[in-house]
Amino acid sequence: MIPDTLSQSQFDTVYNFLSLVIAAQLFTAVFLLISLPRILPRYRQAITVAIVVCGIATYHYFRIFDSFKEAFVSESVGGTGTYSQAEGAAFNEGYRYVDWLLTVPLLLVELVAVLALARKVQSRLLVRLVPAAALMIALGYPGEISDDNGVRGLFGILSTIPFAYILFVLFVQLSKSLENQPANVRGTLGNLRYLLLLSWGVYPIAYLLPLLDIAGADAWVGKQVGYSIADIVAKAVYALIIFQVARIKSFDDDA
Amino acid sequence: MIPDTLSQSQFDTVYNFLSLVIAAQLFTAVFLLISLPRILPRYRQAITVAIVVCGIATYHYFRIFDSFKEAFVSESVGGTGTYSQAEGAAFNEGYRYVDWLLTVPLLLVELVAVLALARKVQSRLLVRLVPAAALMIALGYPGEISDDNGVRGLFGILSTIPFAYILFVLFVQLSKSLENQPANVRGTLGNLRYLLLLSWGVYPIAYLLPLLDIAGADAWVGKQVGYSIADIVAKAVYALIIFQVARIKSFDDDA
Amino acid sequence: MIPDTLSQSQFDTVYNFLSLVIAAQLFTAVFLLISLPRILPRYRQAITVAIVVCGIATYHYFRIFDSFKEAFVSESVGGTGTYSQAEGAAFNEGYRYVDWLLTVPLLLVELVAVLALARKVQSRLLVRLVPAAALMIALGYPGEISDDNGVRGLFGILSTIPFAYILFVLFVQLSKSLENQPANVRGTLGNLRYLLLLSWGVYPIAYLLPLLDIAGADAWVGKQVGYSIADIVAKAVYALIIFQVARIKSFDDDA
Amino acid sequence: MIPDTLSQSQFDTVYNFLSLVIAAQLFTAVFLLISLPRILPRYRQAITVAIVVCGIATYHYFRIFDSFKEAFVSESVGGTGTYSQAEGAAFNEGYRYVDWLLTVPLLLVELVAVLALARKVQSRLLVRLVPAAALMIALGYPGEISDDNGVRGLFGILSTIPFAYILFVLFVQLSKSLENQPANVRGTLGNLRYLLLLSWGVYPIAYLLPLLDIAGADAWVGKQVGYSIADIVAKAVYALIIFQVARIKSFDDDA
Amino acid sequence: MIPDTLSQSQFDTVYNFLSLVIAAQLFTAVFLLISLPRILPRYRQAITVAIVVCGIATYHYFRIFDSFKEAFVSESVGGTGTYSQAEGAAFNEGYRYVDWLLTVPLLLVELVAVLALARKVQSRLLVRLVPAAALMIALGYPGEISDDNGVRGLFGILSTIPFAYILFVLFVQLSKSLENQPANVRGTLGNLRYLLLLSWGVYPIAYLLPLLDIAGADAWVGKQVGYSIADIVAKAVYALIIFQVARIKSFDDDA
Ligand SMILES: CC1=C(/C=C/C(C)=C/C=C/C(C)=C/C=O)C(C)(C)CCC1
Ligand SMILES: CC1=C(/C=C/C(C)=C/C=C/C(C)=C/C=O)C(C)(C)CCC1
Ligand SMILES: CC1=C(/C=C/C(C)=C/C=C/C(C)=C/C=O)C(C)(C)CCC1
Ligand SMILES: CC1=C(/C=C/C(C)=C/C=C/C(C)=C/C=O)C(C)(C)CCC1
Ligand SMILES: CC1=C(/C=C/C(C)=C/C=C/C(C)=C/C=O)C(C)(C)CCC1
Ligand code: NA
Ligand code: NA
Ligand code: NA
Ligand code: NA
Ligand code: NA
Ligand code: NA
Ligand code: NA
Ligand code: NA
Ligand code: NA
Ligand code: NA
Repeated sequence: MIPDTLSQSQFDTVYNFLSLVIAAQLFTAVFLLISLPRILPRYRQAITVAIVVCGIATYHYFRIFDSFKEAFVSESVGGTGTYSQAEGAAFNEGYRYVDWLLTVPLLLVELVAVLALARKVQSRLLVRLVPAAALMIALGYPGEISDDNGVRGLFGILSTIPFAYILFVLFVQLSKSLENQPANVRGTLGNLRYLLLLSWGVYPIAYLLPLLDIAGADAWVGKQVGYSIADIVAKAVYALIIFQVARIKSFDDDA
Repeated sequence: MIPDTLSQSQFDTVYNFLSLVIAAQLFTAVFLLISLPRILPRYRQAITVAIVVCGIATYHYFRIFDSFKEAFVSESVGGTGTYSQAEGAAFNEGYRYVDWLLTVPLLLVELVAVLALARKVQSRLLVRLVPAAALMIALGYPGEISDDNGVRGLFGILSTIPFAYILFVLFVQLSKSLENQPANVRGTLGNLRYLLLLSWGVYPIAYLLPLLDIAGADAWVGKQVGYSIADIVAKAVYALIIFQVARIKSFDDDA
Repeated sequence: MIPDTLSQSQFDTVYNFLSLVIAAQLFTAVFLLISLPRILPRYRQAITVAIVVCGIATYHYFRIFDSFKEAFVSESVGGTGTYSQAEGAAFNEGYRYVDWLLTVPLLLVELVAVLALARKVQSRLLVRLVPAAALMIALGYPGEISDDNGVRGLFGILSTIPFAYILFVLFVQLSKSLENQPANVRGTLGNLRYLLLLSWGVYPIAYLLPLLDIAGADAWVGKQVGYSIADIVAKAVYALIIFQVARIKSFDDDA
Repeated sequence: MIPDTLSQSQFDTVYNFLSLVIAAQLFTAVFLLISLPRILPRYRQAITVAIVVCGIATYHYFRIFDSFKEAFVSESVGGTGTYSQAEGAAFNEGYRYVDWLLTVPLLLVELVAVLALARKVQSRLLVRLVPAAALMIALGYPGEISDDNGVRGLFGILSTIPFAYILFVLFVQLSKSLENQPANVRGTLGNLRYLLLLSWGVYPIAYLLPLLDIAGADAWVGKQVGYSIADIVAKAVYALIIFQVARIKSFDDDA
Repeated sequence: MIPDTLSQSQFDTVYNFLSLVIAAQLFTAVFLLISLPRILPRYRQAITVAIVVCGIATYHYFRIFDSFKEAFVSESVGGTGTYSQAEGAAFNEGYRYVDWLLTVPLLLVELVAVLALARKVQSRLLVRLVPAAALMIALGYPGEISDDNGVRGLFGILSTIPFAYILFVLFVQLSKSLENQPANVRGTLGNLRYLLLLSWGVYPIAYLLPLLDIAGADAWVGKQVGYSIADIVAKAVYALIIFQVARIKSFDDDA
């Protein structure tokens, strides 16, 4: 899947997007950390989880960035011309799955935590969402590393089952809880699920590309850019919206 | 645009200015972070954004610095003599646009936040300024990376439209809000817009240089120095003035 | 014991698991550190020790990761193919024992601290558990570095004596203290000991492998993966459960 | 000015002194940061500036240290024997001027801030001291990088004018303010100016060396050691005395 | 003194002990930093100094570790076999003296600070102990770097004079102050002096080795291990005991 060569502008595009993700995730975490005391204790669990999620993403993107830099090299003066795969260094896509395994369940914890539901309701949601999320990622992995389209297809379908279940819980079961949320955040929280749907949807689509015989350097660069944007939306933008919700609820509760 | 060779003193000048920016941005962020508790909660959002802006700039200048160090090499003993472009390493100007995409909208958020306006007024300003700022940077990028002066000129003009709009909002629409600010910061806030105008103006001018056929190592070194100074003024000095305003308003509100 | 060569997928598996442990330990520490103020002062000692344990593990896994990366190299383009041991670089297993020497006694301190027992009872437990834990690790080391199965067996048995003693103290003597714990954490604390037993049990089993003539690259990779999972359970998951206990007790005491 | 070769003991002396400065500046900053809450808010501005000054110095000494390590190399086994200038790497003295440009004005801000004068008096002192300090450093730079003793002498004299003015303000104008300080810090504050005079005096003297035809490896090593000690006194020791003053005043105000 | 070659197990022993010291010092500092708010303000000065001491030691051990890793190299596959001194890299023992110059006086400040004596009594102790400690280290240095056993002996004796004086002040003059300490820490504080005596004694003994004609790789490895253990006891263990004293006194004062 990894292309043998990249043009300089392809190389630069991936390079700059990976760096953009580092900056976005790192400084979202920093912003939330500094802002934490301005949130009521009741909502700090949600924001703490958001900080951890953006922190984990920062860590993995530092590794992905370094891996990319080592994996493609040019020999021409001024780094112009073609970049080809280096000797002894692989671009490690596996980092993404390691990241998802940790952060995807936490993204759901983040959402549930900001609702500040009764302890029982919260547990009931988490025991469904968290294992489903972990399962979804774990089932996708064998397909991702396989060269066989059959295997890829099979595990893609298996992984889609927990994915569908998560969406079901979010859109059907969670709706009841949303009704008990303060009026001025209900809309935001409802929309947040669509943002989640939209950004999470990028990952199974990217997974499909090889099945659709879409390959080559351009497709690969597109996939990296797509992942980068989806990761910023699904983690950093998502965290900032959750922060906004927590702020508004903090004001309300205080009054 | 990147010169093939730099004299040692040209190399040293760029090198030392890039390092100066790192120190200035990093320690402005540190200063603001330590000083945050001495500001009333109402103004902490502004200062938190300022810390994030200087932090993001620090991150990018570390990358720019390392990129510069790798991109130009000398082979003479003691690093004297000419520095030429290295094999396999490019000086990455793209970092600047990534930085601007994140920080330029935030600089406007910072300014609006320190005014502590009514929530409605604040929203109205931000939904205009933030997208315009992002658009301005995004439209400049295709021109920046193009070798064709026509393309550069076209996108420069397109990018100037949101730029003009930002200035319009700042100088016409914001004026009304300024009148409601306490007397002892009104002057400072008014002047801050001129400092903004002055420092932001550097970037479109630097963008024009190739159109004016100004090129060569000296022009390039001048551009790097100009960027460095403009970045310190537009982020660090700007942040310190906003901090000063927040301090004075904190005292007033407290009394 | 260290295999001469690893296939690319063996290399990647170890690589990604080591990185997973770094992320898990580091961000468990970060999470606990941010959450510390939401715990009553009485239980902060336990959480502080948990932070230190995960911090020490992070430090050692960074070293282990770098050591692994240096120790196995591939020469083929794109890092595909076989990875063989590098010249002049050894994969250092010794880090694990250094880590255990510091963290294993602290894991017991963590458990005792969250019980918030009377000072006397606490001391009585710690003067037994801490030296036993240190002794257990110290006695295992000479067997680990020996190539002689007799030596390995002997020190394995010697090390098992303090291990058995620790389990005796935890399961027999600690039971009495558990009865005085609030009802809603008693179950969790009881189960925590089984989680401890289960995860700690991995280490002596891994120690046995050479005695059972189980060797080769696959066994070695399995051992690294086993260590990684056991370390996450024994430190990070364990810490999060202790945090949960401390949270519940903080609520109860507050009420 | 930079010697072609250094003996091993000359190399080690510079090396260890540079590292000493890093440790001294970094941990003075850490000490002050941890101790900040024990100071009354009124004096925290002074200590915050002190932290920033020691932080900036730490940053620059890390760079100077790395630059030195790269610039001189030995080829003999065990690093014994002569160290000569490396190919393609220069020892960058320019960092010092960048450091001074930022820190020397801040050192004066630090002193004025701990006096906690009326806002007007404070402004009057700062608008004199800060620009004079920046001018002093800026005027010294062209002389420092020139190979021509005439140029060096000329800019040395120009730079001495603001230097003399700073001393005049400190010793004549500041005296009046000192009289209003609490009795138990008046002596310390008076002496602090002599410590300042003594440590700052090192820099113009070092600047004179080439004019006095004092050159060679020994003189150069002496200069580096002199700078190192002066930097520790002028920043770290100075900061600790200012901290002591702030502590005593905090006690007094509190009583 | 530095051996030409080390066996792999000698190399690994030094390597792992140096890393152990890093982990021990760093996480003692982290533990104390997190625990600081649980100490009464009156005793925070002592703990802050302890943090700084362990921090400085961490810094120096990172440097010593890196220096060791660069200084000894093996060329065999898997890093087995003999390690010999590298070309162009020296193992820098000088770091130890730089470390002691800063930390040994601070260790005495730490002890005096936890006693929370009257300001006068405290000053009287510090003006004796601190300069004596600095003198002791400074006088030892010329002997350490000399190849001449006569010089080594002479400076060893000179350095022993302030050492004896420190012990005199600690064991004779400090005793009176100990009587005024609360009963439940008096014993611990008394014993702490013996721990100090025991750990500090390691350094002059290691200094004697060359005079006793004890040399070779084994003696050298033993010295590094001895230094490592002594450093952990004299700084980290010592700090934890001082923390324990401060905790008990905080409880007492609070009651
Ligand atoms: C359904 C499905 C998948 C879903 C992946 C998802 C939903 C990933 C979400 C990642 C996020 C949210 C990352 C945030 O940064 C896989 C595993 C690709 C395999 C194919 C089927
Ligand atoms: C109008 C215009 C531009 C404006 C750039 C600006 C205004 C950048 C501001 C950057 C700042 C404030 C950075 C702070 O560090 C471009 C994109 C060069 C393209 C040409 C037209
Ligand atoms: C009984 C026994 C052993 C026990 C090791 C244990 C119990 C290690 C626990 C490590 C933990 C908990 C690490 C956490 O990250 C050894 C030394 C292998 C030697 C063989 C006998
Ligand atoms: C008068 C004079 C100079 C003064 C330099 C000074 C006073 C520097 C102070 C630096 C400090 C205080 C650094 C702290 O770390 C120069 C520029 C050498 C040029 C020659 C004339
Ligand atoms: C008496 C004497 C010495 C004493 C050294 C000491 C007492 C060092 C203490 C170091 C500590 C406490 C380090 C902590 O990490 C020297 C200088 C070796 C020289 C020979 C005579
Ligand atoms: Na590359
Ligand atoms: Na991701
Ligand atoms: Na270079
Ligand atoms: Na910029
Ligand atoms: Na490798
Ligand atoms: Na471990
Ligand atoms: Na060198
Ligand atoms: Na300096
Ligand atoms: Na080595
Ligand atoms: Na030491």
